[in-house]
Amino acid sequence: MSFVLDPAAQDLLFREAHTANTFTDEPVTEEQIQAIYDLVKFGPTAFNQTPLRVVLVRSAEARERLVQHMGGNNKAKTSTAPLVAIFAADNEFHEELPHLFPVFPAAKDAFFSERPVREQNAGMNAALQAAYFIVGIRAAGLAAGPMTGFDHAGVQKEFLDGDHTPLMVVNIGKPGEDASRPRAPRLAFDEVITTV
Amino acid sequence: MSFVLDPAAQDLLFREAHTANTFTDEPVTEEQIQAIYDLVKFGPTAFNQTPLRVVLVRSAEARERLVQHMGGNNKAKTSTAPLVAIFAADNEFHEELPHLFPVFPAAKDAFFSERPVREQNAGMNAALQAAYFIVGIRAAGLAAGPMTGFDHAGVQKEFLDGDHTPLMVVNIGKPGEDASRPRAPRLAFDEVITTV
Repeated sequence: MSFVLDPAAQDLLFREAHTANTFTDEPVTEEQIQAIYDLVKFGPTAFNQTPLRVVLVRSAEARERLVQHMGGNNKAKTSTAPLVAIFAADNEFHEELPHLFPVFPAAKDAFFSERPVREQNAGMNAALQAAYFIVGIRAAGLAAGPMTGFDHAGVQKEFLDGDHTPLMVVNIGKPGEDASRPRAPRLAFDEVITTV
Repeated sequence: MSFVLDPAAQDLLFREAHTANTFTDEPVTEEQIQAIYDLVKFGPTAFNQTPLRVVLVRSAEARERLVQHMGGNNKAKTSTAPLVAIFAADNEFHEELPHLFPVFPAAKDAFFSERPVREQNAGMNAALQAAYFIVGIRAAGLAAGPMTGFDHAGVQKEFLDGDHTPLMVVNIGKPGEDASRPRAPRLAFDEVITTV
């Protein structure tokens, strides 16, 4: 079976791509992040709710504040990556729905009037978008280093607000020396996929 | 700024890709799903936990049982798609961690002994993998129609068990006539991304 996506692109996005733990000094520009966003913003979400919000941590002062909240091994990586981004879910995404979902502008009130429903939706759909963003980082020739090991309440208080839940912190840059661990095993097809 | 991924591949995966609501009759083969899985299984998850589990609904009998649980507009789409898959999160993924995360086999007990922690991890990381899978479906020249509008408890009871939480049901196939809605608006860069 042949993919439409060519093998080099398959390698770039998945087979030869690895989470990076070290990076070169080469900066990640605003133009690169803009281009990545302008590509991956088209990834599908439920009701086109697109709840992912991103904080780019560019100043030395903000970087220092973020590092304090990172877990053990993640402190050094987060200190030295060319760019660090906080990915968060906007639990009040429904405010944008009349604009984002014009085929049914009433979805905002019909489906999303309750906060727990919004939190569940925002969490899952922002995670979908986080994955699209990681694919986009790789498409741009950069490596991502996503991390969930940090004080989530601390990062939320320091950089977000009560309506935004942090999902992950992502280091971004060109991979450095010994950037990645050897590929870990994956589950076999039959362990993951069943047919009924 | 130039991507490494070429423009045609960008179009295939994001810019020209759309959620499909109708499909041709062309079957989706086991070989295609195997190839998609063998590509997207490499997408990163926390601790390589890879909690996504997939049920391919291939028999007419199972299809009928699934359609009963789908919401209004989703019944017809789910009845007619060449292949329908249930994407679920395995809340007991930690059992596989000694194999999947060999650099720290003790992660299973050190971090994931509590079920609520596992559920939170399984939900987010299975959503990341769902997004990789959707990208993989598109890479194979197929279209995805992900849906969250269904009776989640009903689908769980009918096709899964108490340890597996359904995330979405995904129609898969070649897009048919008028398969997609016009592209809905996306948020502007400045509405999504802030810099500190």
